[in-house]
Amino acid sequence: MPEFLPDPDITIENIRQAHGLIKPFTHRTPVLTSSWLDDRLRAELYFKCENFQKTGAFKARGAMHAVLRLSDEQAAKGVATHSSGNHAAALARAAHSRGVPAYIVMPENAPAVKVKAVESYHGKITFCKSTLQSREETLEKVVEETGAVFIPPYNHRDVILGQATCALEFLEDHPDLDIIMAPVGGGGLMSGTALSARFMKPTITVYGAEPEQANDAWQSLKAGRLVPSEKPDTIADGLRTSLGPITFDIISKNVDDILTVSEDQILKSMRDIWERMKIIIEPSCSVPLAAVETYPELFRGKKTGIILTGGNVDLDRLPWQ
Amino acid sequence: MPEFLPDPDITIENIRQAHGLIKPFTHRTPVLTSSWLDDRLRAELYFKCENFQKTGAFKARGAMHAVLRLSDEQAAKGVATHSSGNHAAALARAAHSRGVPAYIVMPENAPAVKVKAVESYHGKITFCKSTLQSREETLEKVVEETGAVFIPPYNHRDVILGQATCALEFLEDHPDLDIIMAPVGGGGLMSGTALSARFMKPTITVYGAEPEQANDAWQSLKAGRLVPSEKPDTIADGLRTSLGPITFDIISKNVDDILTVSEDQILKSMRDIWERMKIIIEPSCSVPLAAVETYPELFRGKKTGIILTGGNVDLDRLPWQ
Repeated sequence: MPEFLPDPDITIENIRQAHGLIKPFTHRTPVLTSSWLDDRLRAELYFKCENFQKTGAFKARGAMHAVLRLSDEQAAKGVATHSSGNHAAALARAAHSRGVPAYIVMPENAPAVKVKAVESYHGKITFCKSTLQSREETLEKVVEETGAVFIPPYNHRDVILGQATCALEFLEDHPDLDIIMAPVGGGGLMSGTALSARFMKPTITVYGAEPEQANDAWQSLKAGRLVPSEKPDTIADGLRTSLGPITFDIISKNVDDILTVSEDQILKSMRDIWERMKIIIEPSCSVPLAAVETYPELFRGKKTGIILTGGNVDLDRLPWQ
Repeated sequence: MPEFLPDPDITIENIRQAHGLIKPFTHRTPVLTSSWLDDRLRAELYFKCENFQKTGAFKARGAMHAVLRLSDEQAAKGVATHSSGNHAAALARAAHSRGVPAYIVMPENAPAVKVKAVESYHGKITFCKSTLQSREETLEKVVEETGAVFIPPYNHRDVILGQATCALEFLEDHPDLDIIMAPVGGGGLMSGTALSARFMKPTITVYGAEPEQANDAWQSLKAGRLVPSEKPDTIADGLRTSLGPITFDIISKNVDDILTVSEDQILKSMRDIWERMKIIIEPSCSVPLAAVETYPELFRGKKTGIILTGGNVDLDRLPWQ
């Protein structure tokens, strides 16, 4: 696999261009509020609903952008990735809308609902064992055989630029935010969010929110070097991945702090959003609200923008059951 | 209890005035779409999200309007109703925001979540047996003792005018709708929807959607007289009530047709909305989409507006479990 290195030359113009490219293929998602939450927390919270995004997650932005940035020659043989989550469906959809194949390596124990999503976007699935080694080896083989271009889920310039369009829209619609916050998994959304925020409003506070039990970003920022999660154990299944070199670099330069939260609070905040806001979100989405509940003094009286990342949950297996 | 008679003098101005009155106390709810549903049904569906309304249901509109229309003298002793559903919470909230008490008669077997909602808006609850007779007798006693004004859930001019503000907003935001559709329970929302639609766009087609197993509106329209449901048996718990004289009168004059749907289709459509649109809706909400699925030829190639009525479900007891 190629190494992806940070690009020091990302500008707001790159992000605006990314937005122009993906606009016809993505939703400008709405921003919702909850007076019940605001009253309880004495804060002003704005929720950008990427759970309403195409494919049910912000991942549609980055995957679409990465696919659209390929030359016709590069794209001709298709794209490939390994993923059991939202990036797989997003890449399959992006490739299909460009009329090229997507080769998706998925662990054999991937949830049926995720497999179905990839199939519904015409992704060509190769199953493998559920170890990272098997995933990487299988992907390498698929790439060799097909000549497809590997599009990684987060540690990739064009993916990050695509994810950055979410905060771009958010700050265009709500330029008066004091704080902007996203959850941190592999750091693609966090990197994009931080970049857009820094360009558009240098004075804004940028927080990442992370489960205590998958706190590699918090550890990495403290250590000043990449410290991958060893055994991430959180219901926020989208946040079990660890930062890569590019996302670590951007996050360490542009994020004010990483706030970590307990599993109990993640679950409680998830249920509050379902019950009070009447929207379906994944456990990963509730990690920023859990951070507001855990450190209320940071948010009191301030306008805080929170990105709700996705809504793909198995309705037959809700975490509070 | 007083009899409420139809008022032949309702005008669009009355509806606009109602809207002006309740605006500071209600959300202008967003309208969502789903390309997945549109592609499948070869239709263009617009969903007005009253599940995001204050109190989690459109009932906030009618109750607020009825309370605001009372003179200070009338309002002074408070308001009262019997309800185990969304009207109870809506009336409690409306009364509290006017600073007067709300006396709510609830059956002793009302779901804990509904009782909690009424309490959270400071409603004063009197429990009774779960029969209609016990509910009415208990309410009568409460009204006698307190001097409160009875605000019924739907068969009431000011309640209907309040509910009409939903279609008013819908048609202001989407004047190009060919069809507008709401579910029919007691007919308050249906009456208001039909009135706004007729005033604002006389050529629009107005449908009501009703469970086959609680089809009193369909029966009543066929018979030309009120035919209450005898044993309504539907998971769409908000639609088990029957029309009253006022709502029957308005609906028979202004609704093009009542479309009835099976329990299976209601459940399937509910799950489709949860899974694809990522929003939480009550079973009653999915009855109009179930009608589109059941009679697709009526909707093909047309722009159809559907009111999603509420999102108050017990997350521990989902109907597909």
